[in-house]
Formats: sequence, C-alpha cells, structure tokens
Amino acid sequence: MEGLREEVAEHRAPEEDIDSLFVNRWSPRAMTGESLDEAQYMPLFEAARWAPSSYNNQHWRFLYATREDEEFELFADLLIEANREWAEDAGVLVTLVSKETFDHNGEHARTHSFDTGAAWQNLALEATRQGLVTHAMQGLDYEAAAEQLNVPDGFSVECMIAIGEHAPPETLSDELQEREFPSDRKPVDEILHRGGFDD
Amino acid sequence: MEGLREEVAEHRAPEEDIDSLFVNRWSPRAMTGESLDEAQYMPLFEAARWAPSSYNNQHWRFLYATREDEEFELFADLLIEANREWAEDAGVLVTLVSKETFDHNGEHARTHSFDTGAAWQNLALEATRQGLVTHAMQGLDYEAAAEQLNVPDGFSVECMIAIGEHAPPETLSDELQEREFPSDRKPVDEILHRGGFDD
Repeated sequence: MEGLREEVAEHRAPEEDIDSLFVNRWSPRAMTGESLDEAQYMPLFEAARWAPSSYNNQHWRFLYATREDEEFELFADLLIEANREWAEDAGVLVTLVSKETFDHNGEHARTHSFDTGAAWQNLALEATRQGLVTHAMQGLDYEAAAEQLNVPDGFSVECMIAIGEHAPPETLSDELQEREFPSDRKPVDEILHRGGFDD
Repeated sequence: MEGLREEVAEHRAPEEDIDSLFVNRWSPRAMTGESLDEAQYMPLFEAARWAPSSYNNQHWRFLYATREDEEFELFADLLIEANREWAEDAGVLVTLVSKETFDHNGEHARTHSFDTGAAWQNLALEATRQGLVTHAMQGLDYEAAAEQLNVPDGFSVECMIAIGEHAPPETLSDELQEREFPSDRKPVDEILHRGGFDD
C-alpha cells in the first residue's frame, strides 16, 4: 500500500486498499509544547462539524483552550497524572461534550455518544491531514470537568483530546517511549460477523 | 473549495479548507437495490478497524448481511417501517454493536459507544471514497436486534447501517424525495466554546 508513513508502515499492515489517512492516524503522546494558531486548529473543528448524527442533531460541543489561554491549566488539571505528564505539551486541549437530548423534542437521544464519536474521528483525520497529532483520553476527572467547565445538566463529558505538533519519542519518559508506536488491530474475523453474532 | 460534489456544493459551504471527503459524505436514502461484492464493502470494514479506542480495546463488532444472504430479510425486519421502505434497497445492512467492557480487566468501558462511533465514521468516509453511500439509523427495534442476532450480554446495539449504490432521488416516494439532499450544519459558534461552556 502506498502512502503509509514510515513509522506507521513498520507496525500496521492494512488488509485492503483503503485511504492511507485512516492508517496514518494514530495517537502519539510526544508533543512539542509548541503553540498552534487558529489557522491550524480551526479546520479540525470544521471537519468534525460535518459528521452525521441522528436527526442531524449535532450533539457535539467542543470546549477548548490553547496553551496561551488562561484556562489551559484548568483543562490540564482535569487529567489524571499519567496523561497530564505528556498532554501538557499539547497546543490545544479539548473537552468533548455531547448533548443527551434532541433539540426538536427534548427526548433522550440514544446515539449522542456514538454520533459524537463520529465527529471526533473527523477531527482526528483532518489533524492527520494537516500534519498534527491528536490523542483522545478517558483518563480525566469527569465530574470535575463537568463542574469546572460549566457543563449543563443533560450534557455528557465524553473525553479530553490533546492536539499538537508531533515531537520525537525521545522527549518522553523511558516508560512512555516504549509505548510510542502506532498500535495494531485485531484480525478482521474477531470484529466482523456475517449474519448474527457468533455463538 | 475544490472537490465538492455538485449536489453537495448546492447545500453545504464549509468555512475552512478541509478534506472534501468530510463534506461529500452524506446520508442519502435512494439506493439502487444492486448487490455489492466483497471487494466493494470489505474496505469499509477495514477502514473502520483502524479507528482509535480507549486502551485500544476496539469495542466495535460488525454484524452484516448482503442482500443475497438469507439473513438480509431478518436485518431489514428489525427496521421501523419508515426506514425499511428505502433501506431494503441497500446492498449490505450492518448492525453495529459495541462491547461495553474492556478485554484486559472486564471493567466497564465508558467510551464504548463513543469509540464505536469513530469506527462508523471511518466506514462512512471510506464508502464515500469508493463511490458508495451509507446511512446510519437508530430507527430499529433494538431489543429484537439483540435477541435475533444473538448479541450477548455486555454488548450494546448501536445502530443499523445501510450501504449501497446511490440511486436517483426519483426512485423514492414523494415524501422522501423532499428530504433527499445533503443537510447543512449549525454555525460553528453553537458548537465551539473557548474555555468553559457558555453560561
């Protein structure tokens, strides 16, 4: 397959001829600590906007802070220490939140998390295209995030996302360096079932 | 912006220079009723495989039936009538299921739906690249799906996905024809908040 980045090709062998963007997207921890400007990160939110959602409700809400913003520290403080260690070198931290109900009738929207995951993936893919890296984390204090970022009732915190410039793995601690490679995936037959679920 | 398809450009004006793939992906209902072969649909599942997930758990499971399969009727029967009306012209129907727990410790995985939404988005984008259309639905009988497709405890049914060849809108009922266009999105300032959530 053409188009795979060198570090990716060492670890990942897609079985079908797909857009290399999907395989080139991975979740590094090593970020440079450099600032990003709006022209770099706004296209990521723009890509996210166009994700599909139930009744086109667009459940996703992106709360963010750049490392120049006063609130950056507040966002970083929400992370567990193992994430904060590397994620404080992000250019932008994003708390991704979803609205649990439909705008048109106020009823519970079963797919609010699922649809918001689609928006996150668009963000991550556009970042890859722009030469930036992203890493989503569930290692954060969800309750503190809801409280300190004024998330209203009826909205769920989904995850924190670090967006940054990729740094060499050597900038990480020894322990994190060992995990700094594009992860492989399960074989297709573990996740794909023709007909019903396997017995 | 270059690269937007004609029917999309009439309805959608992205505000940033992003990959046109995100904007060209939309959710038509008009499908031709033609069969798809494995070479057409396997890359979609392959793209989905490479989505990110918490602890790389890869919560997604794809249960599918092609229109040649005995089980196709079973899948179509799970849909509400308003979806079945058009979705029975899909080439492949997919019931997307997520595992609610981590493989490595059996504990609840908070982001199983969110992560599975990321996999769905990869599938939809690769379909767009291949010239196929996809449409995800929450209009189905979730309980019947779990039961009839042998979905084990600890797995959630997320949605049904129709994959097919795009047909002219005139093949739809008058009512559905009126809705057969690429939907627009909320303005950025409704979904993007710098710092905490707006008061």
